[in-house]
Amino acid sequence: MHTPLGTGTSIILRLEYDQGVVNFGAIASALSDSGGDIVAIDTNRVSSAKTVRDITVNLNDSHDVDRVVSSVEQLPGVKLINVSDQTFLMHLGGKIEMHPKVPIKNRDDLSRVYTPGVARICMAIHDDPTRAHTLTIKRNTVAVVSDGSAVLGLGNIGPEAAMPVMEGKAVLFKQMAGVDAFPICLNTQDTDEIVAIVKAIAPSFGGINLEDISAPRCFEIEERLQKELDIPVFHDDQHGTAVVILAALLNALKVVGKKLEQCRVVVCGVGAAGMACSKILLASGVTDLIGVDRHGAIVRGNAYPHEVWNWFAEHTNPFMVRGSLSEVIEGADVFIGLSGPGVLKVEDVKRMAADPIVFAMANPNPEIMPEEAEPYVRVMATGRSDYPNQINNVLCFPGMFRGVLDCRASQITETMKLAAAYAIASVVSDEELNEQYIIPSVFNHQVADRVSKAVIAAACDAGVARRSRDSRDI
Amino acid sequence: MHTPLGTGTSIILRLEYDQGVVNFGAIASALSDSGGDIVAIDTNRVSSAKTVRDITVNLNDSHDVDRVVSSVEQLPGVKLINVSDQTFLMHLGGKIEMHPKVPIKNRDDLSRVYTPGVARICMAIHDDPTRAHTLTIKRNTVAVVSDGSAVLGLGNIGPEAAMPVMEGKAVLFKQMAGVDAFPICLNTQDTDEIVAIVKAIAPSFGGINLEDISAPRCFEIEERLQKELDIPVFHDDQHGTAVVILAALLNALKVVGKKLEQCRVVVCGVGAAGMACSKILLASGVTDLIGVDRHGAIVRGNAYPHEVWNWFAEHTNPFMVRGSLSEVIEGADVFIGLSGPGVLKVEDVKRMAADPIVFAMANPNPEIMPEEAEPYVRVMATGRSDYPNQINNVLCFPGMFRGVLDCRASQITETMKLAAAYAIASVVSDEELNEQYIIPSVFNHQVADRVSKAVIAAACDAGVARRSRDSRDI
Repeated sequence: MHTPLGTGTSIILRLEYDQGVVNFGAIASALSDSGGDIVAIDTNRVSSAKTVRDITVNLNDSHDVDRVVSSVEQLPGVKLINVSDQTFLMHLGGKIEMHPKVPIKNRDDLSRVYTPGVARICMAIHDDPTRAHTLTIKRNTVAVVSDGSAVLGLGNIGPEAAMPVMEGKAVLFKQMAGVDAFPICLNTQDTDEIVAIVKAIAPSFGGINLEDISAPRCFEIEERLQKELDIPVFHDDQHGTAVVILAALLNALKVVGKKLEQCRVVVCGVGAAGMACSKILLASGVTDLIGVDRHGAIVRGNAYPHEVWNWFAEHTNPFMVRGSLSEVIEGADVFIGLSGPGVLKVEDVKRMAADPIVFAMANPNPEIMPEEAEPYVRVMATGRSDYPNQINNVLCFPGMFRGVLDCRASQITETMKLAAAYAIASVVSDEELNEQYIIPSVFNHQVADRVSKAVIAAACDAGVARRSRDSRDI
Repeated sequence: MHTPLGTGTSIILRLEYDQGVVNFGAIASALSDSGGDIVAIDTNRVSSAKTVRDITVNLNDSHDVDRVVSSVEQLPGVKLINVSDQTFLMHLGGKIEMHPKVPIKNRDDLSRVYTPGVARICMAIHDDPTRAHTLTIKRNTVAVVSDGSAVLGLGNIGPEAAMPVMEGKAVLFKQMAGVDAFPICLNTQDTDEIVAIVKAIAPSFGGINLEDISAPRCFEIEERLQKELDIPVFHDDQHGTAVVILAALLNALKVVGKKLEQCRVVVCGVGAAGMACSKILLASGVTDLIGVDRHGAIVRGNAYPHEVWNWFAEHTNPFMVRGSLSEVIEGADVFIGLSGPGVLKVEDVKRMAADPIVFAMANPNPEIMPEEAEPYVRVMATGRSDYPNQINNVLCFPGMFRGVLDCRASQITETMKLAAAYAIASVVSDEELNEQYIIPSVFNHQVADRVSKAVIAAACDAGVARRSRDSRDI
């Protein structure tokens, strides 16, 4: 492939070698010496003279690939047949497929699942459209909608290139919470068109997960869809991130023994995620919150290019602190980075209040590397899986949609998001809680279940649930 | 349910009865006497005095339901707890679900299926968008798109009510040909909007199956999408029907020993299906074709409300035959009905040429009932499963899309449709062929395979295939 390999890469080498000339030990050491870690060996074919083996090799660094491959190519008696890359192999033909829940074994089945019997189901829904929630996939299906304009850290790569991410989300939806999700990647980035399209396709779905849509368009798209649709619309990059950050912060504050109300929180980066994160923090009691972008602190009185930032200026930074990040970080209790790599300096961290909490979420390279910050912070978290305290949206969206689908919520309220955050935080018991463990693992199976239960309860309290847990389907 | 039950209905009665007062024999005979056929009995709960059983009862006629239910209610010692209907039960929660092809068992899997590894797949597609056909679900996924404007014989019932039909098609796509299909029911019936929406969602899909969209809008929608998209767009109500009718006619003509070129074919009903059916017949050699609608034969020179019918008038009815169906049917070799119930009279059939072929496709009630026509026709076919020679689109669409996906066709040409028709016809061998068996069963597993192979060969000949069968994926 032309594209560089990422971290955690693994390749499969198919080698044919002549036992008379070279033994496997020599091949193994050549691979190890060149930086490859052999994790699996399959013998593919053995003849009297020659052996063909598939050797799976893990690499720490993508740049090792050529060196590892040539190290064995150079060995006498070894012929390299093929090199394949596990990550690409996993993506062949896509990562999800459709399964019939009702196999058609005979004419009788056909007459129920399809014509003529299906006509009765159609007319039952025609008589009462709410029956779509019980008699169609609407009951358990979410659209994962993206326009490919802000995919991961990759930027505006377009709808085709965004598909693998949306398919990955669909896999997580199903595996973590049994939700059927389908990826819809749109070949348009026009706000009005996206709103019209999502409204038009909504009949098939019980919820809409907006994904990787760039700011500020994402704010208007979500807001208009929430107004015009009777199913939940949730921009995960905003609210999923906000919910999980709040969950982590609640536990981090327990560790350091501070209260939200007393903390100065500096949010670095006020795009989609920074905006939503700030809103949920304000909603949960933070008063002294300062937003910073590359031009410095957001302060009311200044004129900003979009209403959302003017709103932000009005509702944050009560003491009208001005200046760059290094200036406003002075005395802050909490730093939340949703910006870019390396913007927070060790010197800045040193000037924070006692027991500083630093969430450096920029991916893959955080605002400050944990190694640098460690000596000066009390609690550190990132978005990465290779450090403690990974803050990952996977902790929120599966359980959130499991909950809204089960109670047939018409929308996701602020209280439902707060409930989800407290539910995630609650999975870490007081006994377990410490600087290195403020947030549960993405593989902790309690998470989705607790989140969905909390979301359902909050939806019922908010009066947006259209189905009680025990109501019968027909 | 308010809606009447269709044919082949089956209900499940949950009964509690007092063994001291009534025995099961009495219940069984009450059910039989009232027209119910007991097919299954599950004992649900037994106490010393009372037994609760679920009794599955098949009914020939929907109107029997009330009589059957009350027959047991009236028995002394019997309490009716619940009546549920198997067809509705089969539809609970919808008929399809999403399955991950790559389970995420651990962090290593997560880093490949999702971030950070997925970023490499995204960039590989960004570098070369054609890779979407191998690295995403586009390779095997079709959108089944409807606006709910002409669903089965039910008319304009809207998108929610159309979903069960589209889900049923998705089940058939997967089961008959391994194609992943997803139902998209649109909450708009505006031609321009539908075209814009389908274009916008196309990146996720390898093909578009338009379904149950009313004429004449369906003609423009399909035509514009075919021009503007680089994946096949196929309106099944038109072309699926046309392909299967041609297949049946090819075999019917073998039976009677006539040639397409020599036949006078009367097509009754020139909506979406009648139009497409006439076109494929003209493309395959029919010259003397007369279209008839409720106003009589379509004749050139008359002005029709839409270009498609003016085109039709120009290209059919060479002898400019005028008059009603009963007039133009005189001496016809073939009648193809795609209109409504009972429009063809026995007297009309008697006045057809020798060895008349009658395809009465109106559903559920054909243009003439086989019982009436039998004595006077040589070959009779309908759209119904309860008579011989069922002409069903299920014989075409799964294999058609299997073929276009496998060869990555950019469109479906006329020659590909003809190839599909000949492939379907070929499944009935000359030894098997007779008046009662001109078309294979929808459960004949050879059909989809033969259709897909024929479609691929035709696509390669037409130069619209973008992948040769043996090309490697990466």
